[in-house]
Amino acid sequence: MVRVVAKKKVAKEKHAEFLAIASEMVALTRKEDGCIEYTINTCKQDENLLVFLEAWESQAHLDAHMQTEHFKTIGPKYNAFCDSSELMIMEDAYQ
Amino acid sequence: MVRVVAKKKVAKEKHAEFLAIASEMVALTRKEDGCIEYTINTCKQDENLLVFLEAWESQAHLDAHMQTEHFKTIGPKYNAFCDSSELMIMEDAYQ
Repeated sequence: MVRVVAKKKVAKEKHAEFLAIASEMVALTRKEDGCIEYTINTCKQDENLLVFLEAWESQAHLDAHMQTEHFKTIGPKYNAFCDSSELMIMEDAYQ
Repeated sequence: MVRVVAKKKVAKEKHAEFLAIASEMVALTRKEDGCIEYTINTCKQDENLLVFLEAWESQAHLDAHMQTEHFKTIGPKYNAFCDSSELMIMEDAYQ
């Protein structure tokens, strides 16, 4: 299993717009093969942060996700609200 | 549900020691009431990083976790290997 944490600095007042656009991405992504989890989260420590938490069966499934039409077309629309972002792709250290 | 991402900067050569100590924490924590997920992960983007990914039924369950004997006694032992850490406690933005 591959886990993804994607931190996106998004001004609090832009969250509603961001989440409205991203909701279609969430719905389509959760239908993808190998998608175990795909959520967008607010963070108690930073109100100007939205964090994607994802789990995929394999890196290949994650790679396929990043080639989908919705990733390529919807992603840029909500990323326009991002001041910065940080991506972490991870695997269980005890594997 | 409450999600936790705890990023810990740990030098790569200290990972084995860190993970040996933390393995008892993982085993005990997964038995706790309300613990949905508790993993320690390596990160492709930074080999000197270990990331705890946690999911708890509620903030109350997470709070109880942080009052457990193992949290108070084992945590400091592996945190001794940390150069810095960043904690994010999160909830689904669409809730």
